[in-house]
Amino acid sequence: MKFKLAFIGFGVVGQGLAEILEEKDFRKEYDFDYEVVAISDMKLGSIYEPEGLDISKVLDIVENKGDLEEYPAAEKGWDPIETIVKSDANTIIEVTYTDMKTGGPALEHVRTALKEGKHVVSTNKGPVANEAKKLLELAEENGVHYMFEGTVLSGTPAINLALMTLNGCEIKEIKGIVNGTTNYILTKMEEGMEYEEALKKAQELGYAEADPTGDVEGIDAQGKIEILSNTVMDADIELEDVSREGITKLTLSDIEEAKKEGYRWKLVGSTKKTESGVDAKVSPEKLPLDHPLANVMGPTNALTYTTDYLDEVTIIGPGAGKKETGFALLVDLLFINKMEK
Amino acid sequence: MKFKLAFIGFGVVGQGLAEILEEKDFRKEYDFDYEVVAISDMKLGSIYEPEGLDISKVLDIVENKGDLEEYPAAEKGWDPIETIVKSDANTIIEVTYTDMKTGGPALEHVRTALKEGKHVVSTNKGPVANEAKKLLELAEENGVHYMFEGTVLSGTPAINLALMTLNGCEIKEIKGIVNGTTNYILTKMEEGMEYEEALKKAQELGYAEADPTGDVEGIDAQGKIEILSNTVMDADIELEDVSREGITKLTLSDIEEAKKEGYRWKLVGSTKKTESGVDAKVSPEKLPLDHPLANVMGPTNALTYTTDYLDEVTIIGPGAGKKETGFALLVDLLFINKMEK
Repeated sequence: MKFKLAFIGFGVVGQGLAEILEEKDFRKEYDFDYEVVAISDMKLGSIYEPEGLDISKVLDIVENKGDLEEYPAAEKGWDPIETIVKSDANTIIEVTYTDMKTGGPALEHVRTALKEGKHVVSTNKGPVANEAKKLLELAEENGVHYMFEGTVLSGTPAINLALMTLNGCEIKEIKGIVNGTTNYILTKMEEGMEYEEALKKAQELGYAEADPTGDVEGIDAQGKIEILSNTVMDADIELEDVSREGITKLTLSDIEEAKKEGYRWKLVGSTKKTESGVDAKVSPEKLPLDHPLANVMGPTNALTYTTDYLDEVTIIGPGAGKKETGFALLVDLLFINKMEK
Repeated sequence: MKFKLAFIGFGVVGQGLAEILEEKDFRKEYDFDYEVVAISDMKLGSIYEPEGLDISKVLDIVENKGDLEEYPAAEKGWDPIETIVKSDANTIIEVTYTDMKTGGPALEHVRTALKEGKHVVSTNKGPVANEAKKLLELAEENGVHYMFEGTVLSGTPAINLALMTLNGCEIKEIKGIVNGTTNYILTKMEEGMEYEEALKKAQELGYAEADPTGDVEGIDAQGKIEILSNTVMDADIELEDVSREGITKLTLSDIEEAKKEGYRWKLVGSTKKTESGVDAKVSPEKLPLDHPLANVMGPTNALTYTTDYLDEVTIIGPGAGKKETGFALLVDLLFINKMEK
């Protein structure tokens, strides 16, 4: 098939994918036949060009002018739903804003696209956290794919590792470090920094936001554990079903005390199959230094899958970043390309 | 498609897959429609039954009688090539003996199957080490798949991680622990055992063979590095192009000395892209304790992929075992199933 792509949202992650598409000849080297036909972004504006957009020109205009006003296109000003429904795109790249509690407005974009028989690749946590089962069923009913590698550990294979390369295994437990900001802060505290100083450093480097609550209180990790539970572990839980404690109560002296005993504090997220569903939580854990997760430092993430046939399989890699998350969208597109050949 | 499977070879790994197929309802739970129609094994004999074999009965007879003589089947006594050509199997599970230097006789089995337009899944290192490019081209020409996850790190995603879940990334370097026997021996030496004692322990546990040369001299690791170079790094090298040093020169005092300095000896295999191809080697390396590979202990294996978009991604998991390697065949079959839908 020829992919006709529409970006719904064109912020950091969308632009990350667009830059990647410009860097290699994916049409030739990866047998991936595509055009980008539409972009609809709340801030930058909306363009639709059935003949295909010039991505390098789009990136240039966005960088230099701050919006897509100047780009000549067949249609302009379509909102996300219009772009999904009216354009001839057959694949939607959903990278807008999402509310973790309701999944909106991204949820409506994903649902509409799947109902229209369009593939969806997305890094948006909201829809998959809230409605994974329903959306995957909707995709199947409409003969299309819904893929979301980038929702957990950015492009580091986490979802696809479980669903594709561990396919056939039962995954009994998943445990890991799924938030880079807190792991970076804990690493700096391990080096002797106080919490406030480490947080400031994380903010300077762009790892933490001005309001760091989502990271340091474990809410981001909670959402990722919800996603892993509902997609890989076949559960059907809500955000609140993942018990949560962040790192804000950990002091430098807690960390130094653990260090003396040969332990290291980590913010660990986990979900484990039980007779009635899953037992899911996020909380600081004091791990012995020879534990595989204890040596995952800085903004790096890691997940250990406990399976029936392979026992423990651990993946370690980046958890965030423009190119890292943009790549997650690419690998999902390349998977669909293989499956639709 | 409905998979009609023929086992060429039915030793430990083949039986591992057969046992797995009996354990879950893959037809229903994984939408994997299959029958096993043939088995051809040098020691156990050969049976072909176009209606499908009763795998539980096959496993039972093999265990209790030591060969397939008693199993009633439409055809008996076909050699591997006859089984591949004459049976109506559309997918060949190639798990026979292989010579790493020539790839034979497995190479001929794989080549014949692909020429006949039959998919091949295999854990056999010889063919892919020697002829990866040609065999993959042959598969493509004939519209079928040739997959070999189990040749490196058993079922731990190594090949599929690189080719599927890191698809789109350029892999610049691969480095890791690809032999469980030597890693087990080094772990025991780390605990204070002399080399000879650790080797004996490894032999008792079935990690090392009576003649341990292939493992301890790094030849097994050399073959795996050759495979990774020729499949993931797009190189075209011979076994001898991977420089090799085993662990037999390491003494307990080397290990204890490193330990005092905060280092740990590991047998490391690596392959790195260069301007003219790859620089590939297997040799003992003294790693600092905070290096991700330093903490991979016992028979566990690990690989770090250095990529353009994700920087370093590390996978850690088992490197051998009956079910672990049998699973590698299963996951390859399930991939083909997804791609042929």
